[in-house]
Amino acid sequence: MKLLDIYARYKKDIQYIESELEKNVHSDHDILKETSIHLLKAGGKRIRPVFVLLSGKFGNYHLENLKNVAVALELIHMATLVHDDVIDNAVTRRGEQTVMAKWDNKIAMYTGDYIFARALAVVTQLKDPEIHQILSKSIVQMCIGEMEQIRDFFNTDQSIRNYLLRIRRKTALLIAISCQLGALAANASREEVRALYSFGYNVGMAFQITDDVLDLCGTEKQIGKPPGSDIKQGNITIPMIYALQESDLKESLLFLINKIKQNEDQSDVNQFIQLIRNSAGIEKAEALANQYIHKAIHQLDQLPDIKTKKHLHDIANFVLSRKY
Amino acid sequence: MKLLDIYARYKKDIQYIESELEKNVHSDHDILKETSIHLLKAGGKRIRPVFVLLSGKFGNYHLENLKNVAVALELIHMATLVHDDVIDNAVTRRGEQTVMAKWDNKIAMYTGDYIFARALAVVTQLKDPEIHQILSKSIVQMCIGEMEQIRDFFNTDQSIRNYLLRIRRKTALLIAISCQLGALAANASREEVRALYSFGYNVGMAFQITDDVLDLCGTEKQIGKPPGSDIKQGNITIPMIYALQESDLKESLLFLINKIKQNEDQSDVNQFIQLIRNSAGIEKAEALANQYIHKAIHQLDQLPDIKTKKHLHDIANFVLSRKY
Repeated sequence: MKLLDIYARYKKDIQYIESELEKNVHSDHDILKETSIHLLKAGGKRIRPVFVLLSGKFGNYHLENLKNVAVALELIHMATLVHDDVIDNAVTRRGEQTVMAKWDNKIAMYTGDYIFARALAVVTQLKDPEIHQILSKSIVQMCIGEMEQIRDFFNTDQSIRNYLLRIRRKTALLIAISCQLGALAANASREEVRALYSFGYNVGMAFQITDDVLDLCGTEKQIGKPPGSDIKQGNITIPMIYALQESDLKESLLFLINKIKQNEDQSDVNQFIQLIRNSAGIEKAEALANQYIHKAIHQLDQLPDIKTKKHLHDIANFVLSRKY
Repeated sequence: MKLLDIYARYKKDIQYIESELEKNVHSDHDILKETSIHLLKAGGKRIRPVFVLLSGKFGNYHLENLKNVAVALELIHMATLVHDDVIDNAVTRRGEQTVMAKWDNKIAMYTGDYIFARALAVVTQLKDPEIHQILSKSIVQMCIGEMEQIRDFFNTDQSIRNYLLRIRRKTALLIAISCQLGALAANASREEVRALYSFGYNVGMAFQITDDVLDLCGTEKQIGKPPGSDIKQGNITIPMIYALQESDLKESLLFLINKIKQNEDQSDVNQFIQLIRNSAGIEKAEALANQYIHKAIHQLDQLPDIKTKKHLHDIANFVLSRKY
């Protein structure tokens, strides 16, 4: 089943979340209105809200209860993207200009702050203190992850463990708690909440790994930004770490990385991408993503056999094979 | 009574808050640890935590209950300062290098995000949903205020009302809710909570106005940063708005503002400062601050006659006469 077919099953509820997102970033302030709407319209897979809704199906599914969790998580995600784009000097995302490019860094910083603040305003509607605690702890971890990313820029000496810890904080955690909080808000059992958290965590890890592969193997049309963005900003991803382990490639790769660091020359970036594609790095990274997806699917065994379980299974498989 | 004498009365509790602040920004991450400790050590008047504590005296004063409110508000304030310094290209604050200058803009952005996230982690310890709602709404307003400030940079056409709305969001609101939330957390009566909110609001307005006066009349040693920082970054403050109303000054002021906008030349800034000092702008701004302090003190009439009331009165007067 394709992602869109799965989404179609929950179309009405997803559309409702979409309209709530719009409502919640609304501002009378001109620039904030423009930047926020610009971000919303650029779209995205909305995987976090979708995971909230689907996880909620394992408890007492009440859209009104789940809505605030879904909206808050997507807004938090959006806010981090805007700040990420500042750090990465990213000019396009999802085929659209970034806020940082269309306006400037400062506007982007405050747009991120604003959207984040709006997310908090939504969070305050939630009554369960456990949800608040899980959220705030995760946000702290996400910030640490972002700082780790800055620290590790152009660090060609980093271990696989280092990379995995970083993407855990940067990506997997928020996807994990999307499942966890959806289940919690629907009063699913402790075991189900745990299984869904673990499902989300493993899907999230795979999601980031495939993202990092796509940045090296996708076309600009597929990924909505120029390929090689990672290495240009110094983000050493898992296919690169694997490739750097190949003794016949290491020297040329280090030479190119150093050149890219100095000049950001596109021909160097293209040459670098070609070298990685010819290495075993891509295949190994895909195998690792595959492992995570298997672990994720394995978690589903602990859940009752409802239709939604099949849909989670399908989304996990989509993450592995996705080209966008 | 001097500010330090008032603080001395609450020394033990203020020191406790200080140690809690340190505990709460602690990170195992090297850069975050350094930037956060750097910020804490740079000090500040800690007026928000002090207002939380003093307002708590009008209800059932339990330091453990008030602690989380005080720490959260000061951390939120610190986070906004770090982001402000990015916007303002500020190199020094409180006589110390800013995070943005000592590290860079990107580190400063994430340090702000991190400290803010830590503030939220503290907020989750608070049980009262009303406190959460007040906080999140205020944070949204503060973000809007920051955006308004960017929008209004070098706008020499702005009204006094525009300025007042901006500093209300930028400064007065957080000081107002410091009083409000301190009283709420101590279960003070609704009337007392309202009076303290209004007290804080008016003190906060006066605080920002005197800040804006000091930027034009203080020495670098007094204010911990070079005078004229406001006009250099395009921040048109109330003494300037008043001075621009003087027909014999307007043209020279507009000419200088335009030159400063182009070149940021220090001699133009000095000449500009001199013109404002010679205008009625400073005096009028001080009179306005005075009015706010009077309104603040008037609010105290509604509060019972405990020692703390006298201390709030003294702090309000300090805000008016402060040179730092």
